[in-house]
Amino acid sequence: MRYTTTSPAPMRGRNFLMTPGPSNIPDRVLAAMHRPAVDLMDTDFMALAESCFDDLARVFGTAGRVFLYASNGHGAWEAALANLVGEGDLVLVPSTGMFSWAWGKLAEDLGARVEELPSDWRSGFDSARIEERLHADPGHRIRAVLAVQTDTATSVTSDVAAARRALDTSGHPALLMADVVASLGSTDFRMDEWGVDVAVAGSQKALMTPPGLAFNAVSERALRESRAAGTRRAYWDWRQRMGKEFYMLFCGTPPEHLIWALREALDMIFEEGLDAMFARHRRLARAVHAAVEVWGQAGALEFNAVNPAERANSVTTVRVADGIDADRVRLLARDGLDVSLGGGLGPLEGKAFRIGHMGWVNEPMVLGALGVVEMALKACGVPYGKGGVTAAVDSLAEARFPETSRAGAG
Amino acid sequence: MRYTTTSPAPMRGRNFLMTPGPSNIPDRVLAAMHRPAVDLMDTDFMALAESCFDDLARVFGTAGRVFLYASNGHGAWEAALANLVGEGDLVLVPSTGMFSWAWGKLAEDLGARVEELPSDWRSGFDSARIEERLHADPGHRIRAVLAVQTDTATSVTSDVAAARRALDTSGHPALLMADVVASLGSTDFRMDEWGVDVAVAGSQKALMTPPGLAFNAVSERALRESRAAGTRRAYWDWRQRMGKEFYMLFCGTPPEHLIWALREALDMIFEEGLDAMFARHRRLARAVHAAVEVWGQAGALEFNAVNPAERANSVTTVRVADGIDADRVRLLARDGLDVSLGGGLGPLEGKAFRIGHMGWVNEPMVLGALGVVEMALKACGVPYGKGGVTAAVDSLAEARFPETSRAGAG
Amino acid sequence: MRYTTTSPAPMRGRNFLMTPGPSNIPDRVLAAMHRPAVDLMDTDFMALAESCFDDLARVFGTAGRVFLYASNGHGAWEAALANLVGEGDLVLVPSTGMFSWAWGKLAEDLGARVEELPSDWRSGFDSARIEERLHADPGHRIRAVLAVQTDTATSVTSDVAAARRALDTSGHPALLMADVVASLGSTDFRMDEWGVDVAVAGSQKALMTPPGLAFNAVSERALRESRAAGTRRAYWDWRQRMGKEFYMLFCGTPPEHLIWALREALDMIFEEGLDAMFARHRRLARAVHAAVEVWGQAGALEFNAVNPAERANSVTTVRVADGIDADRVRLLARDGLDVSLGGGLGPLEGKAFRIGHMGWVNEPMVLGALGVVEMALKACGVPYGKGGVTAAVDSLAEARFPETSRAGAG
Amino acid sequence: MRYTTTSPAPMRGRNFLMTPGPSNIPDRVLAAMHRPAVDLMDTDFMALAESCFDDLARVFGTAGRVFLYASNGHGAWEAALANLVGEGDLVLVPSTGMFSWAWGKLAEDLGARVEELPSDWRSGFDSARIEERLHADPGHRIRAVLAVQTDTATSVTSDVAAARRALDTSGHPALLMADVVASLGSTDFRMDEWGVDVAVAGSQKALMTPPGLAFNAVSERALRESRAAGTRRAYWDWRQRMGKEFYMLFCGTPPEHLIWALREALDMIFEEGLDAMFARHRRLARAVHAAVEVWGQAGALEFNAVNPAERANSVTTVRVADGIDADRVRLLARDGLDVSLGGGLGPLEGKAFRIGHMGWVNEPMVLGALGVVEMALKACGVPYGKGGVTAAVDSLAEARFPETSRAGAG
Repeated sequence: MRYTTTSPAPMRGRNFLMTPGPSNIPDRVLAAMHRPAVDLMDTDFMALAESCFDDLARVFGTAGRVFLYASNGHGAWEAALANLVGEGDLVLVPSTGMFSWAWGKLAEDLGARVEELPSDWRSGFDSARIEERLHADPGHRIRAVLAVQTDTATSVTSDVAAARRALDTSGHPALLMADVVASLGSTDFRMDEWGVDVAVAGSQKALMTPPGLAFNAVSERALRESRAAGTRRAYWDWRQRMGKEFYMLFCGTPPEHLIWALREALDMIFEEGLDAMFARHRRLARAVHAAVEVWGQAGALEFNAVNPAERANSVTTVRVADGIDADRVRLLARDGLDVSLGGGLGPLEGKAFRIGHMGWVNEPMVLGALGVVEMALKACGVPYGKGGVTAAVDSLAEARFPETSRAGAG
Repeated sequence: MRYTTTSPAPMRGRNFLMTPGPSNIPDRVLAAMHRPAVDLMDTDFMALAESCFDDLARVFGTAGRVFLYASNGHGAWEAALANLVGEGDLVLVPSTGMFSWAWGKLAEDLGARVEELPSDWRSGFDSARIEERLHADPGHRIRAVLAVQTDTATSVTSDVAAARRALDTSGHPALLMADVVASLGSTDFRMDEWGVDVAVAGSQKALMTPPGLAFNAVSERALRESRAAGTRRAYWDWRQRMGKEFYMLFCGTPPEHLIWALREALDMIFEEGLDAMFARHRRLARAVHAAVEVWGQAGALEFNAVNPAERANSVTTVRVADGIDADRVRLLARDGLDVSLGGGLGPLEGKAFRIGHMGWVNEPMVLGALGVVEMALKACGVPYGKGGVTAAVDSLAEARFPETSRAGAG
Repeated sequence: MRYTTTSPAPMRGRNFLMTPGPSNIPDRVLAAMHRPAVDLMDTDFMALAESCFDDLARVFGTAGRVFLYASNGHGAWEAALANLVGEGDLVLVPSTGMFSWAWGKLAEDLGARVEELPSDWRSGFDSARIEERLHADPGHRIRAVLAVQTDTATSVTSDVAAARRALDTSGHPALLMADVVASLGSTDFRMDEWGVDVAVAGSQKALMTPPGLAFNAVSERALRESRAAGTRRAYWDWRQRMGKEFYMLFCGTPPEHLIWALREALDMIFEEGLDAMFARHRRLARAVHAAVEVWGQAGALEFNAVNPAERANSVTTVRVADGIDADRVRLLARDGLDVSLGGGLGPLEGKAFRIGHMGWVNEPMVLGALGVVEMALKACGVPYGKGGVTAAVDSLAEARFPETSRAGAG
Repeated sequence: MRYTTTSPAPMRGRNFLMTPGPSNIPDRVLAAMHRPAVDLMDTDFMALAESCFDDLARVFGTAGRVFLYASNGHGAWEAALANLVGEGDLVLVPSTGMFSWAWGKLAEDLGARVEELPSDWRSGFDSARIEERLHADPGHRIRAVLAVQTDTATSVTSDVAAARRALDTSGHPALLMADVVASLGSTDFRMDEWGVDVAVAGSQKALMTPPGLAFNAVSERALRESRAAGTRRAYWDWRQRMGKEFYMLFCGTPPEHLIWALREALDMIFEEGLDAMFARHRRLARAVHAAVEVWGQAGALEFNAVNPAERANSVTTVRVADGIDADRVRLLARDGLDVSLGGGLGPLEGKAFRIGHMGWVNEPMVLGALGVVEMALKACGVPYGKGGVTAAVDSLAEARFPETSRAGAG
């Protein structure tokens, strides 16, 4: 056994899961899973499962087809590639962080040739460079562009619509594939309007569902081309999943409990409304940014995403100055103060922490987490500008109650 | 129907229940109730139920006997009286707020004569006045003194041990009954050491269990005297509940699910340790006080409890200046910001709000709630001193990490 | 500690709780309790709680008032008496078994004088004898008749409407109080039509809710008379519970989780329909009776209720011949075969077992339990007529599918 | 939408899920999923997840390596093939029913050439014919033999150890792959002792866990050969899943909730003991067989599995005579009597029903289900021998209590 259970302090209150996925699962969603399994041919279940496909399409913003896998995001990445990218095909990966890198790596494992457009991992991809590269491919050997909307590691959000414009301007027929795992539900995404051919997402981030489900949303064109393209496949195969028997939707037994969870989460999403959901995420993200801004005034903390407009709605990566151990802050918050933060990934390991603010989050959850981060900075002796939480309070009050709060005393 | 369901905004994150009872119920406790009922004679259940009696006695700090009722706190108030106070008996009630008043009122309903020692409801009872009154009763007509440790309405904590000293000094044989509903588990209470004859508590405050269970802890003397005293009774009767059949412990069918919940809560209490639990409540209360102190600097908010040493560990009643509607602040926090506060009771209706901080609460829960209160003050145009949450952050950091946080920057 | 946990065999399948209360709690009802507590002033909760009062009245069949106690059935017995029967008042108890006896005993504890109409505990009460006794009370000293509809111990159902006729015929003004704890929901009961003044029930039997709630349904007359009658009371007092503040409905904090459970159970009851619910209980009871009939052919088992028409819809008490240990059968079924039966109570201890068939029960649950009883009889060497379960199968098939099953082969 | 919700009768008691997967999920297992997600790096979670791998290896009976996929059984079939069988490789499939056929079909989709050893789908595969075919392959072009231990469609159990003997006797190096999806946990399986190279299973049958997890157990040899063999793969790749980072065990985010469920189910398995679990399944299967035997005496019903020794421990396929609609029986049981049976698959559609008896099942569950089947036969006018359930009662009593029940009356 490589991993051993620690004996943490007793949990004297609720743990705040502020990691960038898995995220906080609503009580309603957990309750929806607490029920017996049913017959595979249960009529109610079949109708409910089918409704999830339709409603996911609404979330993706597509009139295309959605496929739902018992798998995680890596599985859905593979599904997207296996149906369209064959051995030896070239894919272009505009780099945004660990996750663009990992998707490219997976494409290589499946036999594709991968070309990365490098980046410093502190800003979104540059559509001009994509366009330039496409122009340099008159033979159209590039089969697909893999665009990550929000890279969970770097908390950078890129402009996916701009990638489509790059393709259009250069007249290049490459497919546009988008990873929206860390953005769907928290950030505007319009698959059809933006001309995305395949979008990949998972259940466990802003969709508020336990991990174990992942999705492909697929355009007409991509579906048509998949017939002759891609690698040998069965479980991931889109066309088999369009067969007439119900079980074919899932290539076998459906993961019933996760589907009940997803159904409940989708209900919550439509009860709030997608636009309201994006606005809430934006507002909460801004409050986090306001706090980080103030903390950073002492020179020891800064945003990884240098461009404010590219800072993600769902996660904020905070870099610490040399000589400071970001993991100490994170572990003190987790083990002593009941707030779980994400750690720095890859080159940022030990050099950053990440505050997740996606899915089922509201003002007191975010303010409570920020208060604890401020406590942890103080406890670890990290120099920080005082009043981060106050700045977050003010940011949220102004966003929620613009008239009164501006007029108000305080 | 007098009450109708509103259509609140969809819950976009967890609701923070910061009312002074019911309080936040730990997931573990809820999970413990999610199970089928069992046979009344189930051996495991009988052993588990019995263990609750023993462990409650530890929480009360008594070698005496505990009785557990399917009822609420009012029921347990009645039980305490019905077993010891007969029709026409005189009871002395040192006033502390709405709850000392209500207990006295209930004693009247049962036929007792009630004499209140008045108070402005902003400080704890005065043991000197109790002593004085006892001295003035050479005939020992006073049967019992009803002392409320923490009055949930006024958030004032009184010195129960001092009430005992008043009895001892005056050589008066009256029974000392203590209401520890709002304090048990959050505030030191030592039934035997302090000479309390009967203590009354409920499940739904710092004991972290759903409402529906209430307790009497009873000294040897009180048990002995109960044989010949009190009013006609059956359900509340202590002696019947000492019968040899298991079901007599509950005078009939035990409330199985609530007992499983209580067992889990007791496990959590002993995992943390009673002293650690008191210290946590003290620390969180101090953080709330630090925030209120700062907010109050603008002159529009003040503590109801004037004496800092008497401010409760479990709830803080905040008074607002004339012309300000405390309920507006409370309702905005509840309906728009997912934080439930308590309202002012009795004469404080509309003139105060109450922040509950009892039971399953930790740093991020309290900081998140305080952040929302600050937002609500701002949104309602209530003048407040800025930086309340920051003061709470600092208070908690100093309490948890005294060395580092003092040395730390920030 | 008097009770110790045994180490039972691991549960290799679902336990069948076939005791006569607590009964099987539907998954939906358990799920309804799995949620955080809410603010005492939560608008949704207040509306939901209020709806339970109204819907319970429908279940009782009354336009009168329902009171809902955090307590068990003994508490509700006491409530009924405390509001109407004063010290020294005479109550008449037509004996039906342990539960009529226990209610009378409780009346004595509250100071009433109790006169029992004796019975062999194998048949329902005899309304002619009630009438006779009332005639012999020209001074109308009898304040109330306490009638148990189904006595859980003896599984005898009496004719409550006949008790009313006895009162009417004799022109006696005594109140008619009915204990419908073990019958409400499983057996037709029409409070207003039958002229019942107070009916007492609990949550944990056919109402499918965890124990911890109990009810009084009260006629206009009883409510009116309660003003001046009864004993000193507070928690049980009906009139206080009619106060204008919401919390007065519960004389303090409501048992929120049990109320959510009750609400869900009431929804299930009305989804099925009361008449369908009675018919289902009748049908399942008949199947149990068919099995017992066959088993009894070997002379070692018999019904306690000698009159078939008085055998309860909710529980069947089976007596064993001398020399046979009924508890051995019961314990073998419980500990080895995952079916919990009730034991014999009082004089029937060790001489009978009881099969509960109330609440959330259907054909496979009852047939499975009967199959296990047949296994246990065989394993214990109890002589029994073979084919009890087959008789139950046939009984149910004929009841559910009268045409096809009569025509059918087999 | 192709599927629509029906409005079934209200569920008046527990539904009995007697389909051959998904199966009844223990309350403990459902409860284990009812908890918040945790940080991907949560130490407790990592230790718990790792323990599942080790304990699954014990269940498979192997010192080899287990891989755990977020997927269903089809996914795990693909994983087994993708790691070892390349495009153009030949696999031999001894036919046993729909599931051997489907695994072969999936191998074809991945590019393998598939040769079936035909069967009438009413008996297990014939190892002599396997041996014969292997002898006829001196060039060792056959890469693997795909053996299904229990075919869920036909309820036939084959002798996997005999397939190994066929390989050994013929000196053929083909890999032996076993599908134990429908048998693992209910039927003895000894991966290492029987020389199986890869075993494939899922969570949702005798392992009592919701669908959504599936497993590969892999021998040293298979692991070694996988390096150079198989098709392009990433998600299914064994070697990547042996990487040093925890997340690699799952090729990304682990399905946390399903893993908590699996852990609880594994605890239950070891509490009972594997041998006791097999014996229980055998005993319950025999009781089902005893009932079917009796029912069949009227000539309208028969076992699909002609050889008693090959009738599965986990599911029984019952064929109906021509002119009888098996689905009518099944739907009447499901929609009117709360017992879900499996339908006939493939050529048996409408011509058979299947009784699942796997996982969390005990005597009353099986007897209740059989009672309902007997009711449904009667209601549908299907000729059947009377007393099937009685035969099952006797079979179980003799198996559980051999001495007493034989001596016993009845």
